[in-house]
Amino acid sequence: MAKHGSDKQFVKEIADMNADFPQWYTDVVLKTQLVDYGPVKGTMVIRPYGYEIWERIQDELDKRFKATGHRNAYFPMLIPYSFLVKESEHVEGFAPEVALVTHVGDTPLEEKLVVRPTSETIICSMYAKWVQSYRDLPVLINQWANVVRWEKTTRPFLRTSEFLWQEGHTLHATEEEAKEETLRMLEVYREFMQNVLAIDVLTGVKSEKEKFAGAVETYAMEAMMLDGKSLQAGTSHYLGKNFASAFEIKYLDSDGQLKNPYQTSWGVSTRLIGALIMAHGDQRGLKLPPRVAPIQVVIVPVAVHKEGVLEKAQEVSDMLKAAGVRVELDVRDQSVGWKYNEWEMKGVPLRLEIGPRDIENGHVAAVRRDTHEKLFVSFEALEKEIPALLDAIHDNMFAMSHEFLHSHIKVCKDMDEMKEALDDHCFVKAMWCGCRECEDKIKASLAATSRVMPFDQTPVGDACVCCGKEANKVIYFAKSY
Amino acid sequence: MAKHGSDKQFVKEIADMNADFPQWYTDVVLKTQLVDYGPVKGTMVIRPYGYEIWERIQDELDKRFKATGHRNAYFPMLIPYSFLVKESEHVEGFAPEVALVTHVGDTPLEEKLVVRPTSETIICSMYAKWVQSYRDLPVLINQWANVVRWEKTTRPFLRTSEFLWQEGHTLHATEEEAKEETLRMLEVYREFMQNVLAIDVLTGVKSEKEKFAGAVETYAMEAMMLDGKSLQAGTSHYLGKNFASAFEIKYLDSDGQLKNPYQTSWGVSTRLIGALIMAHGDQRGLKLPPRVAPIQVVIVPVAVHKEGVLEKAQEVSDMLKAAGVRVELDVRDQSVGWKYNEWEMKGVPLRLEIGPRDIENGHVAAVRRDTHEKLFVSFEALEKEIPALLDAIHDNMFAMSHEFLHSHIKVCKDMDEMKEALDDHCFVKAMWCGCRECEDKIKASLAATSRVMPFDQTPVGDACVCCGKEANKVIYFAKSY
Repeated sequence: MAKHGSDKQFVKEIADMNADFPQWYTDVVLKTQLVDYGPVKGTMVIRPYGYEIWERIQDELDKRFKATGHRNAYFPMLIPYSFLVKESEHVEGFAPEVALVTHVGDTPLEEKLVVRPTSETIICSMYAKWVQSYRDLPVLINQWANVVRWEKTTRPFLRTSEFLWQEGHTLHATEEEAKEETLRMLEVYREFMQNVLAIDVLTGVKSEKEKFAGAVETYAMEAMMLDGKSLQAGTSHYLGKNFASAFEIKYLDSDGQLKNPYQTSWGVSTRLIGALIMAHGDQRGLKLPPRVAPIQVVIVPVAVHKEGVLEKAQEVSDMLKAAGVRVELDVRDQSVGWKYNEWEMKGVPLRLEIGPRDIENGHVAAVRRDTHEKLFVSFEALEKEIPALLDAIHDNMFAMSHEFLHSHIKVCKDMDEMKEALDDHCFVKAMWCGCRECEDKIKASLAATSRVMPFDQTPVGDACVCCGKEANKVIYFAKSY
Repeated sequence: MAKHGSDKQFVKEIADMNADFPQWYTDVVLKTQLVDYGPVKGTMVIRPYGYEIWERIQDELDKRFKATGHRNAYFPMLIPYSFLVKESEHVEGFAPEVALVTHVGDTPLEEKLVVRPTSETIICSMYAKWVQSYRDLPVLINQWANVVRWEKTTRPFLRTSEFLWQEGHTLHATEEEAKEETLRMLEVYREFMQNVLAIDVLTGVKSEKEKFAGAVETYAMEAMMLDGKSLQAGTSHYLGKNFASAFEIKYLDSDGQLKNPYQTSWGVSTRLIGALIMAHGDQRGLKLPPRVAPIQVVIVPVAVHKEGVLEKAQEVSDMLKAAGVRVELDVRDQSVGWKYNEWEMKGVPLRLEIGPRDIENGHVAAVRRDTHEKLFVSFEALEKEIPALLDAIHDNMFAMSHEFLHSHIKVCKDMDEMKEALDDHCFVKAMWCGCRECEDKIKASLAATSRVMPFDQTPVGDACVCCGKEANKVIYFAKSY
């Protein structure tokens, strides 16, 4: 694991991330008031500071979905149980973890209802009604919604019984078009991870074992957390005709033939909030990427009782707000040091300090959360320099994520090398024969799973990392969330 | 009922609104693809054209909530049944209509879970944990969410088993502050109805019988539909300490005493989409207020094969888009007349026609959906005139709503007058003694319910419209949705 300088004054509040990363995560999400535990086991309450991150994520993704031609809609949450059963792989994957509504008040329902774990089935039942002609294609719809999947082991944001997400569901006339859509949305996600969350990811296709229940192919992006574990941050599925034929979606093509369309689905969830915490945080707490930080700049006035300090701080705050920066002016009755600690823990990308001497010198002191660097910006330059600084912080955070990921990938030839790499908190890049038995064996002996087979399949050997037989698939293995 | 000129060419498609208003409504919402029926009885699918209206409503309300200091959060949808029971009036009101989750997969749950019909109980359980000191007050939180209330008689948008809404939940140190908040949010809603949905409403307080289960006082706004029925468009509740004491929310006040805070909740839902359809529509279909219309301006090129027509239409479209107008350029292979009908049915506020002669004359023809008026706007003036025209359409639609409402209120002295007024599709303004028996009798004999007691309590008599006894409450009665 990468070592992160620990900071004595925080040790009491937040567990040492090098010694106990899971406890560090729990401490950070609770103490910064991103989230709390709900009363029902496995549920979470997303508190305002956490929800504001989700709002920024939604805004950024939503405009990308609309720019690629998608429109939002809303489908019912309660699905007849009989729908779940129509696609055989799908029901196998989801049946054990679905919450079931059986009664209304004291009255039992005729058919039990599934609280959606995902919406392929109910959406297909509607598409079957709406799609009649090739003129109705493509159908490009997205939904923002809550879903419920009952999980045994849960952690806020990462794995909860209920979570928020978006799910795109599209229909196309040809296999080619549907596959293009699958990859287009994967690329939308990847670009978003880079340019909004400042996280580098590996992309590629999942193994048969790891794919979505009901998909032909599942593409995914995998992000590396600071403990070297992988987090599946988003998926894009090519569904072929699996659901379309099960739900009898048929259209009359221009050649007069009745055909099933080809389908995709793709989604990301509130899990992304967990990803950005574990990809960027440090011993002081959160380190939020500027483009989703609810507060991008906090202004802390120093020696507030001195004439002109508060007025100047207010003036700077108003000016930055007018420039579109999300600013908080902290005038609470607390010491300056207490405030610095608080806002560092909360991950605000940039802190501005304004005191009498700064005013005399015609500048503010700006302290970066990512590098702890302190620089001075003249009042006149603020409107231009602060947005530029936020961009520089973003760029640096992405560069650090990129560097961290690529310096923690090891090419391995056999199980011993693999064990060593995993113990060193690295991802493993290896050759794989393609058989399920090797995946199962790796999971059983090393607690690692296959993550993705990258698009670049330049071989890194010719023998399977597990069984040693001839292998032509390049694949990543890792421990994962 | 107000007569609206019927239009022969649409009679086949949309039921006559004067003869069968409910069927007119159903025809309009289905044919314009705002909504469809879900597979489970009483559920609806909000299709993209309907959801885009909801997105506009959300944007407009959300910015108003934030401007009044509220922040969004998200609480779990599944609530332990024991929570529902803690506030006695609340459980009585909601228990018969709640959907219950009893199993996960094949496994029964230890405690059955309620799918939220509203979130007071679960939110209070969290507030009890979060609020400790007077410094933690006020708490000003809003949630955008889906809720489930099982209804016997359902209609798309108006009453469905699941719907989308927002629910504000606030805590305050004093009764006065909480009451101010209750009225502040009612006013936010009223202003939104006027300036965004172009609907005039009556506001006031509900009777004991009609108030929210668990509230001390419920304030509401009532809108008049074109059939003279009332639709409760939004509510703001003063909850006093009812929930706070049931859930043991306590804070240490500055005087060293432990106290329960005072509480409010307030909400509007996808019902608003039903309201705007039934407040503004006509025999041709929808008439959407410009500020929530997904498409504000449709451009229909005339004689598209003529040189320069398509190019000019595209140029106008680009220019208006750049000016922030939501524009659709209709280049489909359909007749001009077919397109005019389609976009009128879909309620687009303004249609621009561009043909060779218009280009020669240096103008476009603009046809208003609200007045059917046709005017010519020169190309140079478009960027300025089109937004102004949209504002004029909004203003006219609100003026019509205001006029319709106030010309359909009758002051009644007794039950005979009341019957006549209701038969004339009017609201009844009357004096009421305040007793439940009179409300019940009016409901039983005239199928009307009390709507609100307005803030202006200038008497319109001194005897109860029902029992004739002394009365000092001014109140509105109406048939309602």
